[in-house]
Amino acid sequence: MRRFDLVVIGSGPGGQKAAIQAAKLGKSVCVVERMDVVGGVAIHTGTIPSKALREAVLEVLAARKALGSDGQYKPVDRKKTLEELSRACQRVIRAEVDLVRAQFASNGIEMRRGTGTCGWIEEPGAPGDPAATNAGGLDIAPTPGDKVVNVIGHDDSVETLRARAVLIATGTSPAKPSNIEFDHLKVITSDELLNLPYLPSTMIIVGGGVIGTEYASMLAALGVRVTLVEGRNRLLEFIDAEICEALQYHLRQMGMTLRLGEKVVSIKRVPPPPGSRPAMEGTDELVEAVLESGKTLRAECLLYCIGRQGATDRLNLSAFGLEADNRGRIAVNPSFQTLGKDEQPVSGVYAVGDVIGFPALASTSMEQGRLAACHMFKERAESVPELFPYGIYSIPEISMVGWTEERLTQAGIPYEAGIAQYKETARGNLLGDEIGMLKMLIHQESHAVLGVHVIGTNATEIVHIGQAVMAYQGTVEYFINTVFNYPTLAECYKIAAFNARNKLRSM
Amino acid sequence: MRRFDLVVIGSGPGGQKAAIQAAKLGKSVCVVERMDVVGGVAIHTGTIPSKALREAVLEVLAARKALGSDGQYKPVDRKKTLEELSRACQRVIRAEVDLVRAQFASNGIEMRRGTGTCGWIEEPGAPGDPAATNAGGLDIAPTPGDKVVNVIGHDDSVETLRARAVLIATGTSPAKPSNIEFDHLKVITSDELLNLPYLPSTMIIVGGGVIGTEYASMLAALGVRVTLVEGRNRLLEFIDAEICEALQYHLRQMGMTLRLGEKVVSIKRVPPPPGSRPAMEGTDELVEAVLESGKTLRAECLLYCIGRQGATDRLNLSAFGLEADNRGRIAVNPSFQTLGKDEQPVSGVYAVGDVIGFPALASTSMEQGRLAACHMFKERAESVPELFPYGIYSIPEISMVGWTEERLTQAGIPYEAGIAQYKETARGNLLGDEIGMLKMLIHQESHAVLGVHVIGTNATEIVHIGQAVMAYQGTVEYFINTVFNYPTLAECYKIAAFNARNKLRSM
Repeated sequence: MRRFDLVVIGSGPGGQKAAIQAAKLGKSVCVVERMDVVGGVAIHTGTIPSKALREAVLEVLAARKALGSDGQYKPVDRKKTLEELSRACQRVIRAEVDLVRAQFASNGIEMRRGTGTCGWIEEPGAPGDPAATNAGGLDIAPTPGDKVVNVIGHDDSVETLRARAVLIATGTSPAKPSNIEFDHLKVITSDELLNLPYLPSTMIIVGGGVIGTEYASMLAALGVRVTLVEGRNRLLEFIDAEICEALQYHLRQMGMTLRLGEKVVSIKRVPPPPGSRPAMEGTDELVEAVLESGKTLRAECLLYCIGRQGATDRLNLSAFGLEADNRGRIAVNPSFQTLGKDEQPVSGVYAVGDVIGFPALASTSMEQGRLAACHMFKERAESVPELFPYGIYSIPEISMVGWTEERLTQAGIPYEAGIAQYKETARGNLLGDEIGMLKMLIHQESHAVLGVHVIGTNATEIVHIGQAVMAYQGTVEYFINTVFNYPTLAECYKIAAFNARNKLRSM
Repeated sequence: MRRFDLVVIGSGPGGQKAAIQAAKLGKSVCVVERMDVVGGVAIHTGTIPSKALREAVLEVLAARKALGSDGQYKPVDRKKTLEELSRACQRVIRAEVDLVRAQFASNGIEMRRGTGTCGWIEEPGAPGDPAATNAGGLDIAPTPGDKVVNVIGHDDSVETLRARAVLIATGTSPAKPSNIEFDHLKVITSDELLNLPYLPSTMIIVGGGVIGTEYASMLAALGVRVTLVEGRNRLLEFIDAEICEALQYHLRQMGMTLRLGEKVVSIKRVPPPPGSRPAMEGTDELVEAVLESGKTLRAECLLYCIGRQGATDRLNLSAFGLEADNRGRIAVNPSFQTLGKDEQPVSGVYAVGDVIGFPALASTSMEQGRLAACHMFKERAESVPELFPYGIYSIPEISMVGWTEERLTQAGIPYEAGIAQYKETARGNLLGDEIGMLKMLIHQESHAVLGVHVIGTNATEIVHIGQAVMAYQGTVEYFINTVFNYPTLAECYKIAAFNARNKLRSM
């Protein structure tokens, strides 16, 4: 039986960074991954494919923009488009998988393919192949407090690993309510999208959270007529309202129908209208969604994006004294130690990433992984959660750091907003980005930068300029006195700073 | 005769920002521009068209990448390509002109079309049309120390403007040595490039400074076989050597021939080889350049990019007691006051931008304009020249801020370099950017960030993250403790920070 300082279950962003951090602290680490990461199609977790799809969509758009001399998009070949997109995605997924494997290898991190499950300490010799598991001479005598993780291979073989600490980073999968008949063709989740035989011409997307909004914007950009249904009165509730408004305005301009404050009460397949010509044989049925308000929507396909379910059902959590909630999520304390049924931390067992809930972004999962690894091996780590950025990879993309106007108002903090439109910059014009906008929130008295909100090209990159200034308690004057490359979108900071200062002076 | 607080001669980046800054201080401002900015072709200054061309080239490349399923670029239609590029450039130039005009209008800045020349104070009623110049009721009595600028219209009309201060921001034009026969077709400067009737298949570019390097990389990206001749042993001498090496390696990989440490001694047109088939009638001659080392180069076209000449010959500088040097440049002090023949500042006369020499970048010209306007109207302005960024819009683009390794070594400052390849990040993989790289220079003892050097996609944007941290005397730990959006190129900072820290620890 092999023993490691850390066994990580799940090789997504959170698991990766925890493994690397622990390895850099000189710890022996093994990562257990259920998926066959070498084969392409098996990778159907959310992060990489959705970003790869987005990049592929942007490339298609760039190509059409460059080629369409009249500025109009050329019509889409719906079968070919999806094939092209899938191929482009596979290319970047392969590169990303290679990258992760190279990082693991260079840090001496071992990998196991199989399903990791929590186990009790078992006597040596029981499961697994002693000859194989003793290879490498790294066996260490069991230590009190050790955890056991059983790795169940695809051939049902079991390898038992001992660990000083276990990190659960298994992520989530789309929730599939039992009253909805998912069929991989007409009623699907985001996992099946790229496996559709063709790009539907009409689509209902249920759920306006991060995933629903990202996919809705990509599909609309490809020319799919999308109806997005969201129970709240706006998309992406944690995003600044003005940025959200700009996004919603843009999505509607692209031809998307937003049904906000609406709930779907039933979903069923219905026969096509008489005389309709399906894109492919056997695909002519429509999906009908009835809303609580009585409206009926019909489309070629329905993408269900409400809720994600923590991937905890195969973990045998009870072996560690843990229990997932009804959405499969694991409770943790601020150090990412899991909390047992008695709400007390379970020694040596941590969880990070989507499986612990909001915000379920790769970036924060990575930070959680790093912090968990530092905590378990008593390494000091600084972290400033109020400066965590949020990145939404819709088209256009959105990013924010710090306070929103709504929260500042609630907290009674007096502020002023400085705004720059991308099209006020030379770079914005070069890119032809008509929607882009940067908003900086400034404290009325101290002039401290309190928040930065960006929508448009490279929003997720340039938000980090404001983040750095905020980290040093900088003021709006920084941006007024700083020279930016010309032409850049970063110049928006200067324009927004002047805008804010003018407003502050005119008070 | 109209009187203004400030008359700006030239409406490039430096002139623009000076005018806007003065207007924001409540001053009356008039900008004199020789070019007919409304018509497209007349705008042949360097900045906007070269950036527009670059963007158009990138769009063409993106289109070919998206369409070429085998990853190979499709062959270029050499006539069509240049037409497409010109059209794309005109579009962004128009947008940029509109933007500048809108900014002038919203700040109450007046414009005059015509050639601005320095003049002595003249008696009212002498030149110009009194009826027209009195319009608007803004006439102000002459004040001792006023300067006069005569605006010579395209119809040879003359309007005389009085000004408390004059700013010369006329920029430069390509130097054209008299021993070289420029002909707009075979031997050209960058001004004529977009007016060529077709894209040459082979090109000699003389001069590996910013302009030569930018154009060489764009043309090579379009598939032109470029030979770049530079007298020094490397391109872009002020750029970090490792970044320059990466650029040179990449340019050679693209098929470019670099002739470094070589000088051109003669340039002449020669008959085409027998049996050659010209792309267009009358274009079959070749250009032959002989190098000092005895090598002979031949190509369809030669682009001469050595030296720029200050656009001062029509300014009548002697009226202000000024004299340009042999390259047409105007000497200034650190406040951008012009220096007369006695090396003393000429009261009320300033100069900024390319016309005063290095670095001749739009970004620094803008800052110079702002600082000059603040100085002339006694407004306090902070500026940190050591944090000015440099942006080179080659393909791939380059940017830097702060110290280079060479300068640190010369100064005896102990440092360590942290390096991240773009392809170590998910975003780099998504973009397929194989060349991108970020290098951060860290003080060995204090861990302060001393310099940031980037080559690759969005280099000019992400350099500003490091610039902000440097402005606050931040250390490498900032990047280790900061959460970056995933996937972004900004993550390179974190990878480079870990890389530097590992090196520092292993010492």
